[in-house]
Amino acid sequence: MIEILTIGDELISGKTLDENAHYIAAALHAQGFIISRITSVGDGIENICRALRDRLPDTRFMVITGGLGPTDDDRTAQAAAKAFGTSCVLHPDALSAMERAYAALGRTMPEAARKQALLPQGSILIPNPVGTACGFCITHDGVEFIFLPGVPEEVRAMTEGFVINHVRTISGSPGYVLTKQLTLFGLWESGIKERLTGRLPDSTIVTVGYYPQFPDVTISITGRGLDVDLVRHEVEQYEAVIMQYLGPYVYATTGERLEEIVGRLLLERTATLAVAESCTGGLITHRLTNVPGSSAYLERAYIVYSNRAKHELLAVPEDLIERYGAVSEQVARSMAIGARGYARTTYGLAVTGIAGPSGGNAEKPVGTVFVGIASDKGCEVVRYRFSGSREKIKIITAHTALNALRLLLLTGTIPQHTATGI
Amino acid sequence: MIEILTIGDELISGKTLDENAHYIAAALHAQGFIISRITSVGDGIENICRALRDRLPDTRFMVITGGLGPTDDDRTAQAAAKAFGTSCVLHPDALSAMERAYAALGRTMPEAARKQALLPQGSILIPNPVGTACGFCITHDGVEFIFLPGVPEEVRAMTEGFVINHVRTISGSPGYVLTKQLTLFGLWESGIKERLTGRLPDSTIVTVGYYPQFPDVTISITGRGLDVDLVRHEVEQYEAVIMQYLGPYVYATTGERLEEIVGRLLLERTATLAVAESCTGGLITHRLTNVPGSSAYLERAYIVYSNRAKHELLAVPEDLIERYGAVSEQVARSMAIGARGYARTTYGLAVTGIAGPSGGNAEKPVGTVFVGIASDKGCEVVRYRFSGSREKIKIITAHTALNALRLLLLTGTIPQHTATGI
Repeated sequence: MIEILTIGDELISGKTLDENAHYIAAALHAQGFIISRITSVGDGIENICRALRDRLPDTRFMVITGGLGPTDDDRTAQAAAKAFGTSCVLHPDALSAMERAYAALGRTMPEAARKQALLPQGSILIPNPVGTACGFCITHDGVEFIFLPGVPEEVRAMTEGFVINHVRTISGSPGYVLTKQLTLFGLWESGIKERLTGRLPDSTIVTVGYYPQFPDVTISITGRGLDVDLVRHEVEQYEAVIMQYLGPYVYATTGERLEEIVGRLLLERTATLAVAESCTGGLITHRLTNVPGSSAYLERAYIVYSNRAKHELLAVPEDLIERYGAVSEQVARSMAIGARGYARTTYGLAVTGIAGPSGGNAEKPVGTVFVGIASDKGCEVVRYRFSGSREKIKIITAHTALNALRLLLLTGTIPQHTATGI
Repeated sequence: MIEILTIGDELISGKTLDENAHYIAAALHAQGFIISRITSVGDGIENICRALRDRLPDTRFMVITGGLGPTDDDRTAQAAAKAFGTSCVLHPDALSAMERAYAALGRTMPEAARKQALLPQGSILIPNPVGTACGFCITHDGVEFIFLPGVPEEVRAMTEGFVINHVRTISGSPGYVLTKQLTLFGLWESGIKERLTGRLPDSTIVTVGYYPQFPDVTISITGRGLDVDLVRHEVEQYEAVIMQYLGPYVYATTGERLEEIVGRLLLERTATLAVAESCTGGLITHRLTNVPGSSAYLERAYIVYSNRAKHELLAVPEDLIERYGAVSEQVARSMAIGARGYARTTYGLAVTGIAGPSGGNAEKPVGTVFVGIASDKGCEVVRYRFSGSREKIKIITAHTALNALRLLLLTGTIPQHTATGI
């Protein structure tokens, strides 16, 4: 069992998100190791000392980050010496490693930095390939304590370069671990669980986790054991059951993002895309262009925020807007056809809606959205109704539009189930 | 002293960043309360039980999140009952609160959700204004235990609506706390500290924190004490020194976002804006349209990802693109003037650059960006050079473009310091 301890006033005062604990936990978990607890305490020596002593009974490793810098509020080495009943001594290897690191940066080592080479007696140096601060590890009372600096980039490099191997070497392999991630959109967690109640087989080696990450939910199936074939078989069995009941909502089984999938599908068909956005205000195109190489299929986008822009850029007839409103099936259709026509692309994707907080009415409340997709087969438009803040409505609308395009590319139509359930 | 305990296998396995602990810590810290420890454990009853029992000696409050959902792996209420030597009973108020919450969503409460109304004996219900799961608090052994669900949105609403007041009511005010936040863009943390070294006065009641949040850095000045005037005076003194040395980089002193400031400045001038984006792919417009009411000044945007789109939509001459390249001062200028001209707006903001990972060359490496702003006074273009991943370059470019527009609105020009330092 592994514990993680992160040190710093910035953590317990909520100034900084604890990305280090998150990263170390994920890296070790991916190797099959079990993390039993993550603790954060402030910079005080007494707090650190107590946290090093208050271990869980079955803890074999403790990975600690932070408090190894040159300033007065960096007190981790001192606290460790105190907790282990020893003292800090100058570690010659640490000193020369630091001098080399400064030299590589073309700087001379400041005098204040010498303090960072004072490590608890018996420490073994951990190389820091990307920074100047040393890490160290020390065995005490049957537990391996691994101390890393607090800079996220250094934590990453030293976890990859040292921690994982060190834990593996000492504890041996934890057996075979297989994780399968299914990403779903269109159902909330409660709807997913309702559909799965009583369906999943019993297993002692497979666990299933549900992780909402708005507006998606990821289902994570993890199998763990010594019998590789059995682990694989049971994980596959779970996946099959989940796909049976939730298949239409699963859009990725490899962690691929929606915009990557859409991009890949367009590339495979050597198809091109123009986008016309109103209420999403550029978010759909922003997401599409986050994918390297997207210029191969994304030709352009029109962010037609005003009615004038809709008319001037996409030839949406003014009387259509007057008669049906800018947020209407008719205008979404006209936008999609206009974008495709003017850009001369294979597909035109259009969105118009009311993101709020104002602008809604009884017939079309805030959250009403129309998504239209034009192709050589005509134009399909689907109406949706979302709720939440302006930013949430923008996010879920962009997600829905990308998903509608994905489904159209795969099946030739936008299935109606995308309009319900959420 | 307050402890925070977050519960969930997704936290200790590194699946999910612990935003809840971060948020609660920040909210209570801002009120002057001291958080002594943050702990995360998995979903197992024994782990939760032990974490509730293993408190620090001076803990008076423990705020707990997670494990209150409807499924089998939600075991916090059960674990609490066990830790406190009591049992879970049906809480009628909880049940009716949940029924109301489901009714408000237009849904009937699923049978599985009834379990969420089983709370440890003696619990007091905490209203959940944004979700269906109930929170509860219970006093045991002189400690106030406050249990919240794990959904970040609900944690926020319940912290604001209940937790802060509850802690205040029981423990009394911790004295006067004044926090001032300055948001800077254009310098990294190291550059900021270099400029401030030896400049800040000594104080026993003021602390200064530096919090990078890419690409901004927030400087937080916190004064704490019983003498309101003294606290105020010293915080103002610090602020004055920081403004003296870093003023040109400070864009907000109230936490306002850059897109809100730009929007407000445009509104005050009854000015309108058209945007032409290439490498940012919609991100600038997405940010502008996150602000409610942005349709009052944002007329439209052109996401001209292809050269054809630049030519067809903004009349960028084809030979200009051929001669100078799509990423050039000349094209940025032509885009800005074209966007302003066709949209007939007060300002035209244009961006063209190389977000990478490919597309760079010796003369124009990845990260080369041109920002142009056209107005009735002509068109200014500034060249920048950023580094990092594609997504980071998009983010910093959008931020730089919005900041350039802010500065032009305030001073009539884009100061050259925006092109250096970062």
